[in-house]
Amino acid sequence: MNSSDLEEVFNPRSVAVVGVSTQKQRTQVGGTNYVRSLLNNGFQGNIYPVNPKGGEIWGLKIYRGIRAIPGSVDYVISSIPVTGALELVKDCAAKGVKAIHFFTSGFSEFGEEGEELEREICAIAKESGMRVIGPNCMGVYCPKSGLSFIPDSARESGRVGLICQSGGNAIYLVREGGLRGIRFSKVVSYGNAGDLSESDLFEYMASDPDTGVILAYIEGTKDGQRFKRALRKAADCKPVVVLKAGVTDSGARAVSSHTGALAGSDRVWDGFLQQVGAIRVSSLEELLDMAVTFSYLPLPSGRRVGALGIGGGVTVLASDACVSAGLKVPRFPREIGEKLGSLLGNEAGTILNNPLDLSAEAWKVGYSDILKLLDGYDGTDLSIIHFSLGLISPPAQQHTETWGSLARDVIESHQVSAKPVVAVIQMSVYDGHHQWMLEAQKKFYEAGIAAYHSMDGAARAIDRFMRYHELRASRGQV
Amino acid sequence: MNSSDLEEVFNPRSVAVVGVSTQKQRTQVGGTNYVRSLLNNGFQGNIYPVNPKGGEIWGLKIYRGIRAIPGSVDYVISSIPVTGALELVKDCAAKGVKAIHFFTSGFSEFGEEGEELEREICAIAKESGMRVIGPNCMGVYCPKSGLSFIPDSARESGRVGLICQSGGNAIYLVREGGLRGIRFSKVVSYGNAGDLSESDLFEYMASDPDTGVILAYIEGTKDGQRFKRALRKAADCKPVVVLKAGVTDSGARAVSSHTGALAGSDRVWDGFLQQVGAIRVSSLEELLDMAVTFSYLPLPSGRRVGALGIGGGVTVLASDACVSAGLKVPRFPREIGEKLGSLLGNEAGTILNNPLDLSAEAWKVGYSDILKLLDGYDGTDLSIIHFSLGLISPPAQQHTETWGSLARDVIESHQVSAKPVVAVIQMSVYDGHHQWMLEAQKKFYEAGIAAYHSMDGAARAIDRFMRYHELRASRGQV
Repeated sequence: MNSSDLEEVFNPRSVAVVGVSTQKQRTQVGGTNYVRSLLNNGFQGNIYPVNPKGGEIWGLKIYRGIRAIPGSVDYVISSIPVTGALELVKDCAAKGVKAIHFFTSGFSEFGEEGEELEREICAIAKESGMRVIGPNCMGVYCPKSGLSFIPDSARESGRVGLICQSGGNAIYLVREGGLRGIRFSKVVSYGNAGDLSESDLFEYMASDPDTGVILAYIEGTKDGQRFKRALRKAADCKPVVVLKAGVTDSGARAVSSHTGALAGSDRVWDGFLQQVGAIRVSSLEELLDMAVTFSYLPLPSGRRVGALGIGGGVTVLASDACVSAGLKVPRFPREIGEKLGSLLGNEAGTILNNPLDLSAEAWKVGYSDILKLLDGYDGTDLSIIHFSLGLISPPAQQHTETWGSLARDVIESHQVSAKPVVAVIQMSVYDGHHQWMLEAQKKFYEAGIAAYHSMDGAARAIDRFMRYHELRASRGQV
Repeated sequence: MNSSDLEEVFNPRSVAVVGVSTQKQRTQVGGTNYVRSLLNNGFQGNIYPVNPKGGEIWGLKIYRGIRAIPGSVDYVISSIPVTGALELVKDCAAKGVKAIHFFTSGFSEFGEEGEELEREICAIAKESGMRVIGPNCMGVYCPKSGLSFIPDSARESGRVGLICQSGGNAIYLVREGGLRGIRFSKVVSYGNAGDLSESDLFEYMASDPDTGVILAYIEGTKDGQRFKRALRKAADCKPVVVLKAGVTDSGARAVSSHTGALAGSDRVWDGFLQQVGAIRVSSLEELLDMAVTFSYLPLPSGRRVGALGIGGGVTVLASDACVSAGLKVPRFPREIGEKLGSLLGNEAGTILNNPLDLSAEAWKVGYSDILKLLDGYDGTDLSIIHFSLGLISPPAQQHTETWGSLARDVIESHQVSAKPVVAVIQMSVYDGHHQWMLEAQKKFYEAGIAAYHSMDGAARAIDRFMRYHELRASRGQV
């Protein structure tokens, strides 16, 4: 297989969605969700909704079947019950469809009978040169062509590719990632991998010029040897970040009823991922943290952090988080400490140190001069600024004014700073804080600043990012 | 010292707030924040704002000094600059004040000169029988008496005591904890511990009948031997949960400039906490998770979890989280699996297993019958239901209707279930989800259900809770 094989998967000229609702009060799930997603994401080709009852949906004619569609159909999304799958794939073969995605479930994840049906469908597809995505998955999100599986995915393309066995997790990662400024090249939720597998996708993304970093959520694989080759090929040329799920016995059992895959032993996976130089993470949040890091953080020249923010206790915990993750928070020399003291309007001789708790002083003097001083000081390699929203009381006005002005300082400093600047905005339950977090996060990524939701998350991601580059350098791969 | 010594700290009949703003456009910080907090929290005694300029604030007369206040003053909150602290404490001694809280900073955390001043002030206070809270802290939140340091703390009392060296972290824990249904007996942010120390507070809370579980955020202590005795005494009679901050070198340095405390070695702390049977956690979120657990979770009879929720990938990760934390997700016997299959309207003979991914079926049949079945099955000890909001698309209507109906099922099942029922609501960045999470969380705790923000957090907290009780049992302390 070469990468051009998948062009029809990512760039179809027309899409038929089989199994849309014909009711006026539509719950936007299944096929209806896909039609809405294609419309909202600006898909430029023809969209053909299909339901034997006919009718209309959002101004689009509903066709009574695949064969009733005039002109060619490149790509089909199936949202009909599994009982109609066999007939559908035959219709598609007759119509000359290039790729079919089964949102439909009830195949190999449901035991022998489903397995047999899945094999039969994939055999028919193969014979007619049609690729099968899934079954039992969300399918493809490709902002460039306007394909998507949720109506609110970002319209802009980016450099992050995502290979995700689970549909629900793909939705979560695309939506939450979108709000964190992660922009995707291609996302594929591939479910049971009846035809198109994680190995195909790693091979494709390895040579895809639009993809700069590859994230993967993997439950298991059916062809271990081929998977190893594909992953190694990808990891040789691009950063690969893997969340391996089903690492415990119960998790592995859940895997087999979810996608029918073989989970494999955790130790074997760990060894292999290390060997090929892939970055292993252990949660969806960590996957997103890595994507933010590779998307926005320039490589710091070392691990020495200048940490600043508001609140004594938060500052103590921030230092612990940095050092525990493998970063350093070195003591400032007397000269820098004194300069900081005078910048903050303290009495002559007051010495401030790293980590810096600016507390009330920060409201008055802001962060610009401090970050300028740190930028010119060669004892740190990056600056991390934490926004500890949780310690501020309402009214909300205080957030927008005071925190807002500090966020502006950080953005302006970033624009002139030679040293990477990183923001951490505490994820808070309180509603007013959450709103501010959402807005600030957007301002940060729009300005090109890596922003995280916790100091632990930021420190761990930055350390992994550094390790990745150090490993590449040690292997002469830079 | 015996616990009655602190009655004036928690139950003053009158409070003077020294250092309030006299300006019309008040930023609600410092003294002004305390006046607002006392008013909002329903403090029943007299409130005396103080500023040499006089005037009025929210209908309260501003006095020009402590001595100008008619009648007695039990409790003073100082928010004036450190330069006025010595005179203030002398005035308070003359006035017969019983306790003074210094929000004011600039004492021992700022080096020798501040240390000297702190000592002098505490000596004057001691001589006149006055307790000092702080300096350099947020002070006391006691819902029963209406004392608080933020305007939006919960008015209701509860069984959770919090000893918190950091003011910012105390605010965070009270506010976020409040939204998670944690209700406090007493919270003390004690800062530099010039007089009232963590040891005093552990001793007090150990014998306080209103406190059922003690949380502590500790940066360090000055009197290791007494602290050990106090903590041991508390841990002997109540659950004690400790977040020790400053566990790395940089963190310890941050501690010394924050509260002037000696951080101590991480290993020594770990050994000691284990020895006395205290539960050690490593983040503010974990502190809150433990408080939720002790407040709402009945002790399960074992570690066997029935895990259910929506989404295959989420279910796989949920199992991994449970098992990694030390819980079990045992396979269901054929009989239960078949019953589940028929409850969900699957074909005859379909076997479902633990963990349960209910996906689309759950929308239709709900959780009531499933939870009833699990309640009657003796192979699990508790049920955990995860609400994986992130995989659902807008519009928001879908959350309120479909998720809302599932949440109602969980609440109704909890009311009749003999087995503990636990809810996990995924913390999501997306605004609509966040809103739903906030509301659902409230409904859960109001119904007496322990609710968490992540499966990892829930599983870890439940395992620690079980361990605590197992340890007590093994020591014959039940």
